Amino acid sequence: MKMSNLYAPTLKEDPAEAELASHRLMLRAGMIRKQAAGLYSYLPLAWRSLRKIEDIVRDEMDAAGGQELLMPIMVDAQVWRESGRYNVYGPELMRISDRHEREFVLGPTHEETVTDLIKNELKSYKQLPVNLYQIQDKFRDEMRPRFGLMRGREFIMKDGYSFNATQESLQETYDDMKQAYANICERCGLKALPVVADSGQIGGDTSVEFMALADAGEAALVYCDACGYAADDEAASTQVAVTEGPGDGTLQKVHTPGLTTIKEVAEFFEFPENGTRKALALIDVEGNPVVAIVPGDHELNDCKAEHLFGEGFHLMTDEELEQYGLCKGFIGPVNLPEGIRLVCDVTLRDSKQWACGANEVDYHFTGACPGRDFEPDAWEDLITVVAGDPCPHCGAPLAGARGIEVSQVFQLGPKYSEAMGATFADENGEEKPFLMGCYGVGVSRTLAASVEQHHDENGIIWPVSIAPYEVSIMPLDPTIPECAEVCDRLTAELCEAGIEVIVDDRDIRPGVKFADNDLMGFPYQIVLGKRGLKNGTVELKDRATGEREDVAIDEVASKVADLVISQRR
Amino acid sequence: MKMSNLYAPTLKEDPAEAELASHRLMLRAGMIRKQAAGLYSYLPLAWRSLRKIEDIVRDEMDAAGGQELLMPIMVDAQVWRESGRYNVYGPELMRISDRHEREFVLGPTHEETVTDLIKNELKSYKQLPVNLYQIQDKFRDEMRPRFGLMRGREFIMKDGYSFNATQESLQETYDDMKQAYANICERCGLKALPVVADSGQIGGDTSVEFMALADAGEAALVYCDACGYAADDEAASTQVAVTEGPGDGTLQKVHTPGLTTIKEVAEFFEFPENGTRKALALIDVEGNPVVAIVPGDHELNDCKAEHLFGEGFHLMTDEELEQYGLCKGFIGPVNLPEGIRLVCDVTLRDSKQWACGANEVDYHFTGACPGRDFEPDAWEDLITVVAGDPCPHCGAPLAGARGIEVSQVFQLGPKYSEAMGATFADENGEEKPFLMGCYGVGVSRTLAASVEQHHDENGIIWPVSIAPYEVSIMPLDPTIPECAEVCDRLTAELCEAGIEVIVDDRDIRPGVKFADNDLMGFPYQIVLGKRGLKNGTVELKDRATGEREDVAIDEVASKVADLVISQRR
Repeated sequence: MKMSNLYAPTLKEDPAEAELASHRLMLRAGMIRKQAAGLYSYLPLAWRSLRKIEDIVRDEMDAAGGQELLMPIMVDAQVWRESGRYNVYGPELMRISDRHEREFVLGPTHEETVTDLIKNELKSYKQLPVNLYQIQDKFRDEMRPRFGLMRGREFIMKDGYSFNATQESLQETYDDMKQAYANICERCGLKALPVVADSGQIGGDTSVEFMALADAGEAALVYCDACGYAADDEAASTQVAVTEGPGDGTLQKVHTPGLTTIKEVAEFFEFPENGTRKALALIDVEGNPVVAIVPGDHELNDCKAEHLFGEGFHLMTDEELEQYGLCKGFIGPVNLPEGIRLVCDVTLRDSKQWACGANEVDYHFTGACPGRDFEPDAWEDLITVVAGDPCPHCGAPLAGARGIEVSQVFQLGPKYSEAMGATFADENGEEKPFLMGCYGVGVSRTLAASVEQHHDENGIIWPVSIAPYEVSIMPLDPTIPECAEVCDRLTAELCEAGIEVIVDDRDIRPGVKFADNDLMGFPYQIVLGKRGLKNGTVELKDRATGEREDVAIDEVASKVADLVISQRR
Repeated sequence: MKMSNLYAPTLKEDPAEAELASHRLMLRAGMIRKQAAGLYSYLPLAWRSLRKIEDIVRDEMDAAGGQELLMPIMVDAQVWRESGRYNVYGPELMRISDRHEREFVLGPTHEETVTDLIKNELKSYKQLPVNLYQIQDKFRDEMRPRFGLMRGREFIMKDGYSFNATQESLQETYDDMKQAYANICERCGLKALPVVADSGQIGGDTSVEFMALADAGEAALVYCDACGYAADDEAASTQVAVTEGPGDGTLQKVHTPGLTTIKEVAEFFEFPENGTRKALALIDVEGNPVVAIVPGDHELNDCKAEHLFGEGFHLMTDEELEQYGLCKGFIGPVNLPEGIRLVCDVTLRDSKQWACGANEVDYHFTGACPGRDFEPDAWEDLITVVAGDPCPHCGAPLAGARGIEVSQVFQLGPKYSEAMGATFADENGEEKPFLMGCYGVGVSRTLAASVEQHHDENGIIWPVSIAPYEVSIMPLDPTIPECAEVCDRLTAELCEAGIEVIVDDRDIRPGVKFADNDLMGFPYQIVLGKRGLKNGTVELKDRATGEREDVAIDEVASKVADLVISQRR
């Protein structure tokens, strides 16, 4: 390919709307263009990289027993009604009517379509498991589309679905998919962690997200270097930890006038915040009052609270606090008014000496002991885990990071098959709903995540496996016959070796060439300069390390080919 | 691939809804399934074939200087307003609003999007030509979606667009595309003709459709075996032909009581129908009366008439005939009442002796001569050409056929660039609108057209180049160790040779295996039977010819590999 022919309009200035490196650099490198909010065109360079990611995904899916197909983007609303999602999915679901006023959705995900597809065609346990996938444009009408390809309204996804006869078989497929997903990240050059995830709107029991580590990531996560545990902050748990408060083992009421925050109370007792207890008064989704107690140095986790108290629970208003006889800033587990459910964080179970509100204005207790001074109605996992908390598996301190969710595997179980009446005959001839798994890879998001992980101040640094071209050749003065001749020869040699080459044949200043090639991030760059050519050498630059060396013209093609091929995955 | 794992639910019976062979056979072979009217899922076998077609298209596009990209499916309605198509496209255009009530369309074609994309980025004639394409799901809300993949509401299309500085350059790109399109048909195994086409809603001047010849085709076309001319019946023309009527060179009024049809008149004069003249009285779109005269054995062509008389012209009602003084059944060019425009078909220009209505009840003229007895206001191309008419280029008789439009190339000129203000600076620094071409391939329709051309009563007969698998191996009794062993060995040998193999390892009766493999249409089938194995042979079947031969086990893999590789394109 000649760069004079390539459609890749570069920008000299950083576009104002781009906050993230991936967004900014792909716009500047002429790889993407916005058509409307959250809707991007992938120009030739980006499209080449995306196709490589797709091929890696295909390769791993096929190796793991997946079969590729393609379902329609337009999905009859009827099947979304059957599954029950049509009315609960909310405004992110794009809805459309045809000329006969029949309702459709633009599939954000295809559980319903695929279940409807195999229903009455897969009939016996003997045909199972079946694992089907597609790579397709997906639609979600985000409230605030942003960050370029990171959060678009139309994006490329690989979505796969398995149909299994038994939980054991589902677990096997799920584990295979998890391994395939780890391979995909690795082959795309992404440093990613498989983290325990909340399963969100899709539903089901068990799920892992692959998080590409990046400061710009929207998700907060914790991980354990010792044992490999990782979880996003919506789902992470920690160990039971004994975090005692001040005191001598007896319950003492202490006058703490005006001290309503954890910080003030901890300072008053000259004790770390984790010895205090934070109390949150809330109304669950059925309208019942609850007091939740967490360690003073942790926060109540919204996602966990939603699971326990229902989507739509809320913190009590001042009026509600008064109605239930609770004193703002001094709520605690001891002497709680009648009729209020007491739920304590499970990490506190072994702790016998709590500093907590006394349910009396301007008073706290120290030495409050569960089982003796109060009796929780339940011990539950309530808190948002933070860096430094002990790993739930091995106890080593967890590290914190930010990540970009690039893929996710779920065990759905019979959620969709039951709702849609999709069954098979088991070994005893009994009709049973399929156990399903679903498996998604954000293909266009993987591209953006890769740029987040691989760039510097000059531009993108593509991993060889997903680079739009593996090598660029820059003849600095193509009008000199010798320069053009060497350029043609190296191009031919590299193409012969199966290397993807782009030649920057544009008649522009060398500085602009260097800048554009760095911006576009080709992994290896061969510079043909006048002085080198006289000595029979060219300059070879490694984009990732920035290292340059002079290499004999006769040797450079085979040297570069070896380097490239060793890094293909 | 093992067929026991393949997701391809076959049907024993012909599905009632399928009229066309391609629809019926792809349903029966478990290749496609309907999700809703005009919306199909492509199951793994069909998807493999489609990907091969896509790759052939890519290969030809890239070789012709095309660059692949991907634009969003959702297109901001604003750009369709700019081009003027938003309001004229009609109900086939699928419209959707987002959560902020902003209007979008699901692109049926992307002239607006691509023009908007390059606008202000392509700036100089030096950057031209640029030729961009994508392969994408397209949407058209057909009134009556039918015939399976042939006329769907969501379908796969390759759409490409060129931006050129001069008409000469546009013509060059257009010619290259035309050649690439011929190559695509040929490589996909399609017998197709490039026919002169009407440019329809897309607009523009010059266009050719590639028609795959098939009895089931929706389009009627004519072609010339002598010189290669071909055209669809909306656009075909013919030569000026001297088709004289009866008579001695003088104008004679003849009493023809009650003879109002061409057939009756021709019989009365004992003369062929082409010697008579058919008159059609109509009102053009501006409300003016017109009489159109065509040879008695031809029809007025609706499409040509629309171009001449405006979309919405109509044949006169009895009341209108009376109002303008015309006698139904006896209308002709001589003595036409004042104020009626007379337009005659151009093929009649050299004919001096017409048999035609006399504009008087129960009378015809013979020997009517243009220039002497009447003066047409215009000679125009009015008729629908039929088989047997002389070729407009060489005069040889045209043949008739039916075809499936699989692809089309257009010269759009400045239609979109002018409307949308997309300009470049020419050599003199003057701003000019781009000259554009657009080039479409119906990818999913090509698949269906291929089945229409390649099938028999037993099923599909895939050309090797787009077969889902090139070879199937049928071990008739996989439980016999020797059979399984030979099967594994042949599979390994063929895979080693790069051949795509599917093994029908299902534990079913041989007859069902034979039937399914023929239905699915794998080009070469290797049957491992008990008797042959004893003699060291297997049976090799050529699906296209039906020929079978016994081949030594040691030789069959290399023989089949040679056959397959020679037929890849």
